[in-house]
Amino acid sequence: MSDTPAQTPAKTAFTPPTHTAPPARFSHGVRKGNILQVAGQVGFLPAVPGQPPTPAGPTLREQTLQTLANVEAVLREGGASWEDVVMVRVYLTDTGHFAEFNEIYDEYLAGTAGLTGPPAARTTVYVGLPAGLLVEIDAMAVLD
Amino acid sequence: MSDTPAQTPAKTAFTPPTHTAPPARFSHGVRKGNILQVAGQVGFLPAVPGQPPTPAGPTLREQTLQTLANVEAVLREGGASWEDVVMVRVYLTDTGHFAEFNEIYDEYLAGTAGLTGPPAARTTVYVGLPAGLLVEIDAMAVLD
Amino acid sequence: MSDTPAQTPAKTAFTPPTHTAPPARFSHGVRKGNILQVAGQVGFLPAVPGQPPTPAGPTLREQTLQTLANVEAVLREGGASWEDVVMVRVYLTDTGHFAEFNEIYDEYLAGTAGLTGPPAARTTVYVGLPAGLLVEIDAMAVLD
Repeated sequence: MSDTPAQTPAKTAFTPPTHTAPPARFSHGVRKGNILQVAGQVGFLPAVPGQPPTPAGPTLREQTLQTLANVEAVLREGGASWEDVVMVRVYLTDTGHFAEFNEIYDEYLAGTAGLTGPPAARTTVYVGLPAGLLVEIDAMAVLD
Repeated sequence: MSDTPAQTPAKTAFTPPTHTAPPARFSHGVRKGNILQVAGQVGFLPAVPGQPPTPAGPTLREQTLQTLANVEAVLREGGASWEDVVMVRVYLTDTGHFAEFNEIYDEYLAGTAGLTGPPAARTTVYVGLPAGLLVEIDAMAVLD
Repeated sequence: MSDTPAQTPAKTAFTPPTHTAPPARFSHGVRKGNILQVAGQVGFLPAVPGQPPTPAGPTLREQTLQTLANVEAVLREGGASWEDVVMVRVYLTDTGHFAEFNEIYDEYLAGTAGLTGPPAARTTVYVGLPAGLLVEIDAMAVLD
């Protein structure tokens, strides 16, 4: 818009090759200044041309691991990693999933992702999600 | 508070003339350092002195367009625009509204708002909102 | 991770002495660059070694005051205060709690916390929380 301050830092969007184009005018990942924001990710498998998004499976484990992999794909596409993430927002659909989710979350971050520095802050709440989805996660990272 | 670092950047709050004073001790928009945060906006029409807040209408379309206009009013009051927004959080009350919401969202951003740069990241979840409200949206922008 | 940019600012996590270790790999508070993020806090009383987390009480007032005190404890541990907070996210479980919550929120910020500058932006939505919990709050602050 014409009133955008001329000195505002550049804003860049990125979509991992594993991701489908977002269903609306938003970006899977965007960076402006020192902030990198990952949009809400769910447990969809890597996109297959011509096929609709498909969840990794019906279970919390399958969907959580895929969702975290999708968040990581966006972080990497933006030149960041879990070490740069300051906040993770977790949306579950069932309070009964909290303990299992935490086990999977820790297993992924410490194991698969190899996080060695201080973990991000996190907020977990229980909401409604589209049918079949048990978890959605977004993340904010701070870079230079 | 006395332990606030002396060198902390100035924090400023702003309220568009179209908005009523918030119902509690929060700001519709605030900027500190390079971060501009827009509080959760709903589909209330421009404030009329002496009258309670009134939704733009009962439909998702009416409320979404007004909510986005309200977010934009706060951004502009803070000297920002949609081009500066890195994250939009959308709270709907019915998963059945997702497709229609996306149509209206795209129509507003590309049309009314004239967004030409990369769109912000976004997370959409389904929650409870006060009676009669179908959508709430907040946004974070990064400036210099 | 090996691909973390070498020039990325340091990331530090902190846990107030009143807090138990988080139940998963996340930090109650973390700072990276100019961003300080407080994880979602609930109304648990100061931790007692060997005892499970205990809510301050069953009422919205008891839990809200304790939750705000817990957010403040994390802010202070990170060298920040409410004056530095730009966004507060409030998760309630009942829309009928909004008016009372606002009274308690204002009473705490203006009274107990002594907030004198512009208040943070805020978004309040209604979600599910673990049994017995009526409120969860997180906050983001901007420092130098």
